[in-house]
Amino acid sequence: MVAGGGLIGLAVAWRCAQRGLAVTVVDEAPGTGASYAAAGMLAPVTEASYGEEALLALCRASLERFPAFVTEVQAASGIDVGLRTAGTMVVGFDADDMRALEDLHAYQDELGLAVERLTPREARRREPSLTPRLRGALAVAGDHSVDGRSLHAALLTAAESAGVRLLRSQIAALRVADGRATGLRLVDGSEVRGDAVVLALGARSASLPGVPAIDVRPVKGQILRLRGATGLLEGTVRALVRGRHVYLVPYAEDRLVIGATVEDRGFDPTVTAGAVHDLLRDAIEVVPGVTELELVETLARWRPGTSDNAPLLGPAAMPGLVLATGHYRHGVLLTPITGEVIAQLLTSGQLPELAAPFRPERFTSRPSVMDPSATIVVANCVGR
Amino acid sequence: MVAGGGLIGLAVAWRCAQRGLAVTVVDEAPGTGASYAAAGMLAPVTEASYGEEALLALCRASLERFPAFVTEVQAASGIDVGLRTAGTMVVGFDADDMRALEDLHAYQDELGLAVERLTPREARRREPSLTPRLRGALAVAGDHSVDGRSLHAALLTAAESAGVRLLRSQIAALRVADGRATGLRLVDGSEVRGDAVVLALGARSASLPGVPAIDVRPVKGQILRLRGATGLLEGTVRALVRGRHVYLVPYAEDRLVIGATVEDRGFDPTVTAGAVHDLLRDAIEVVPGVTELELVETLARWRPGTSDNAPLLGPAAMPGLVLATGHYRHGVLLTPITGEVIAQLLTSGQLPELAAPFRPERFTSRPSVMDPSATIVVANCVGR
Repeated sequence: MVAGGGLIGLAVAWRCAQRGLAVTVVDEAPGTGASYAAAGMLAPVTEASYGEEALLALCRASLERFPAFVTEVQAASGIDVGLRTAGTMVVGFDADDMRALEDLHAYQDELGLAVERLTPREARRREPSLTPRLRGALAVAGDHSVDGRSLHAALLTAAESAGVRLLRSQIAALRVADGRATGLRLVDGSEVRGDAVVLALGARSASLPGVPAIDVRPVKGQILRLRGATGLLEGTVRALVRGRHVYLVPYAEDRLVIGATVEDRGFDPTVTAGAVHDLLRDAIEVVPGVTELELVETLARWRPGTSDNAPLLGPAAMPGLVLATGHYRHGVLLTPITGEVIAQLLTSGQLPELAAPFRPERFTSRPSVMDPSATIVVANCVGR
Repeated sequence: MVAGGGLIGLAVAWRCAQRGLAVTVVDEAPGTGASYAAAGMLAPVTEASYGEEALLALCRASLERFPAFVTEVQAASGIDVGLRTAGTMVVGFDADDMRALEDLHAYQDELGLAVERLTPREARRREPSLTPRLRGALAVAGDHSVDGRSLHAALLTAAESAGVRLLRSQIAALRVADGRATGLRLVDGSEVRGDAVVLALGARSASLPGVPAIDVRPVKGQILRLRGATGLLEGTVRALVRGRHVYLVPYAEDRLVIGATVEDRGFDPTVTAGAVHDLLRDAIEVVPGVTELELVETLARWRPGTSDNAPLLGPAAMPGLVLATGHYRHGVLLTPITGEVIAQLLTSGQLPELAAPFRPERFTSRPSVMDPSATIVVANCVGR
């Protein structure tokens, strides 16, 4: 059983059902959380940070799987998920921005990533809507994007076609018996039982009653959606505008996402005048033609953040409970690999090596390393 | 019969019903046009322009009536319309802004209007949320504001209580027989007949099939509504921010309107990224605390503009047709006086002297002056 029908929960459910497991997804309103707001960038390279090599490897592994994943989910659902392969450009405006771009480039070089440095003229030849005021750019051919909402719709259809049962009910608590997760209690008083419970509630993962303390906190993001952008941009543009980050991601026929704030404000749902202003100001500075677009949506959601910005994948300290959360800014990108590794864990009992650095126990005094008895926990929680 | 159930149409209907006329208002969705967007400023003095003395006189006459009008409509409806009498401040930022403020002040002095010049310190003593970066200010105690949406709701209730019949149907055309307006044709094919038809369709007044050519065009305005502004501003703040106009109007308990663009784009309904950005940028510059507010609404509507920025009040060239439109940026303010003068015209046959400069014929080769037969038109259209 999977708690949470966002991108992550559905990918896990779909992959588990394909492997023969009986899966129920419980979500009152599937796809209305972070999946609803996500810009859909598939950008491990332009997101690369020092010290996050394991995360980068996971992200790249997921990106490698994306074309086949998209083909499969589109075939299973009949829904186009809007994969764009025009690449990503990172642009900078002042000397500090350019130094940051050079650092990023050096790091990417070191990792053997394919990145190209562009003059402003070259950047504008590829994306003519870019302002002439930019100072320089990096082009990453491999960083793509997908329409997160379409992907969600497609995954929902694919999962249901594969036999996943979707229960549109509000979850009240984790059902725990003898210290073991045995299902979910719903607000209507009923219960759903299962041999294993996959927690895929995104930013709300830590707030479900009954769930043991896990390191997930909400990181607010405000994001804008615009219309009328036909022909404006070929691919994603990320920018450092005198130290401020903004990205512009085209999707569908004429749509554009502009994002996003990163705010530590708990579950504050407010779309603020200041955030909308700042996002528009920076986006307009990068692509002046944005002024003419129709502003159709302003929204705020919460990324599931963790202490090390990396996801929680695998068995929790409580038997029967498996975590597939904490994806922070990488939820869309990590959807294929998360579905795969959690399904593999639940069918084979083994978490694939690639996911090992993201075991939840890394935050809980590392019992599997320091305490031999804790390995039993891992064994226990492998269920179906 | 009144075509259009916005503020103007309802005020006319209410006043006519009070005088014993049988009145039907036809509007598919009353109060969703310009009345829905209006900031509700009652600001004849801070809006005063050279060469518009007759309009200023009309505006001031309407403002004088406002307190009694509000008392009456509140009593008749039981709905508080949010009259704020904290006055209006006009602030400027650069030398050119200050020259414009001085010119306005000189003109207001000349007209005998009560205006006070304030230093930045004095301005901030009255409105502490104002930025310290402003250069100077004018304070107009007499320019107030009202909550336009509440006023509309109150007028609707008051009018219906007074016997006005509201027909929520879409109007297809003016019904004309023998060159005379005799009612309205509705999209469902039915007809509503009346001895006189008052055209109060705002910006759409000129586009109703059957209506003779009249000088009304849509002037697009984009406007924002925010929440969380408790205590931010006492009264209205209008600003010239290095030549750009913006206003901030507090209403209800914690609301704020920020407006407005003035655009010649026909009936374009688009809320653009550029307009939202510009309004927020200027408002934040005037009152930095705006950044923290919740942006709850962005919308675009159309003011009914005319060649001389003044309304069309009185008989049209077509017998049976009376105009109450073209109020441009003064619709809320001119609501009481418009209801009064049109009701007086329809009951007595005489348009009050105050409204004479706004007779529609001023744009149509002035038939009442040049052609004695045209006076018959005025007599003809007096009906019930």
